Amino acid sequence: MISPDRFRKIRHMLLHRQPDLTVVMDNVNKAHNLSAIIRSCDTVGIGELHAVSYRKSIYTEQDAAAGASKWTTLHLYHEMATVYKKLSDQNMQILVASSSAGCMDFRNIDYTMPTALVVGAEWDGISEAALHGADQTIAIPMFGMVESLNVSVATALILFEAQRQRSAKGMYDSLQMEPGLFHQTLFELAYP
Amino acid sequence: MISPDRFRKIRHMLLHRQPDLTVVMDNVNKAHNLSAIIRSCDTVGIGELHAVSYRKSIYTEQDAAAGASKWTTLHLYHEMATVYKKLSDQNMQILVASSSAGCMDFRNIDYTMPTALVVGAEWDGISEAALHGADQTIAIPMFGMVESLNVSVATALILFEAQRQRSAKGMYDSLQMEPGLFHQTLFELAYP
Ligand SMILES: C[S@@+](CC[C@H](N)C(=O)[O-])C[C@H]1O[C@@H](n2cnc3c(N)ncnc32)[C@H](O)[C@@H]1O
Ligand SMILES: C[S@@+](CC[C@H](N)C(=O)[O-])C[C@H]1O[C@@H](n2cnc3c(N)ncnc32)[C@H](O)[C@@H]1O
Repeated sequence: MISPDRFRKIRHMLLHRQPDLTVVMDNVNKAHNLSAIIRSCDTVGIGELHAVSYRKSIYTEQDAAAGASKWTTLHLYHEMATVYKKLSDQNMQILVASSSAGCMDFRNIDYTMPTALVVGAEWDGISEAALHGADQTIAIPMFGMVESLNVSVATALILFEAQRQRSAKGMYDSLQMEPGLFHQTLFELAYP
Repeated sequence: MISPDRFRKIRHMLLHRQPDLTVVMDNVNKAHNLSAIIRSCDTVGIGELHAVSYRKSIYTEQDAAAGASKWTTLHLYHEMATVYKKLSDQNMQILVASSSAGCMDFRNIDYTMPTALVVGAEWDGISEAALHGADQTIAIPMFGMVESLNVSVATALILFEAQRQRSAKGMYDSLQMEPGLFHQTLFELAYP
């Protein structure tokens, strides 16, 4: 039997879920970065995220994800076009995070709209396929010598700006999930 | 000879430096986390940071720091008391980041004051020695199942809130370094 505390915690988590906010990882390869991203997703209420990889499978570090993998679903694709099609069908704006010049400051974006955030690989950055079909490229300002931030850091900075805006709009104060799905998911997670 | 572009880049970096903002790493052990933290420090204009470690020496990953180690100075200590003494002598407020209950929301803090941010180890979190002597404990809100964020992610979220506040106050628009030190450092970095 699940403890009442555990049940309350799972319920609390689902009550704060943001079904219209997600992340797409464009060939992010290092397990510790993938894991840190999944962990940040959990904290801002993202339950489903997406990874595009040329590889057959991708790996995360259980430790680094701090258990978040258990509560989030990671969808794996081999083609960016497939996930873009899916997100467009859900009417999501597609924002590509990039450290290149000419991008919009990440704080000047409205994240209360249905939003998918695309982040790039450690070495190669954002792929051509990811740029193609994006609604907007966004950048975090930098004042030093390095050319880019760590990908899990950049992802978290943008997700917590989304959290700040959504909190201000009350989106963490009322159920965002479809009620039927909320009850079904609560049941499945609490009584696996 | 250094190229004019390189010189301009170094000058631009020093013009944005925030000498009264720093980070203290309380036994942060993993090289990739240390490196991501140094990299984030560089981007918000932190030139000097501090690490307390029980170990004799600490290691960073050159790759993960993306070259930031070359432009920042990391001071290593074995006792928290030593670095706290030094920071207090510089009139810095000491903020301890913690995922425990009862901390102040990190967005309700004034980071335009001279500020040292203390972050804890991957497993052990913040030490007793670090808690003792802190002016304030601060937390990043979390809405999911995991108990904490990755340490380099948590550090960056707080540093970029500081950057946001300091930008709004014009602190990135005018020289914050002492002018003599600015010219000396520019000379040293440009003509090593
Ligand atoms: C380490 S960076 C990639 C660097 C790569 N050499 C390049 O040229 O893009 C990994 C990913 O983190 C994100 N990122 C890093 N710094 C960023 C910044 N300042 N603004 C927005 N996104 C950033 C981007 O999605 C990027 O593709
Ligand atoms: C992985 S956490 C440490 C977890 C550790 N098990 C504990 O109980 O503290 C590493 C460090 O990141 C920072 N951190 C992580 N999540 C945070 C949050 N939500 N708010 C503030 N700081 C956080 C803290 O400095 C913490 O010591």
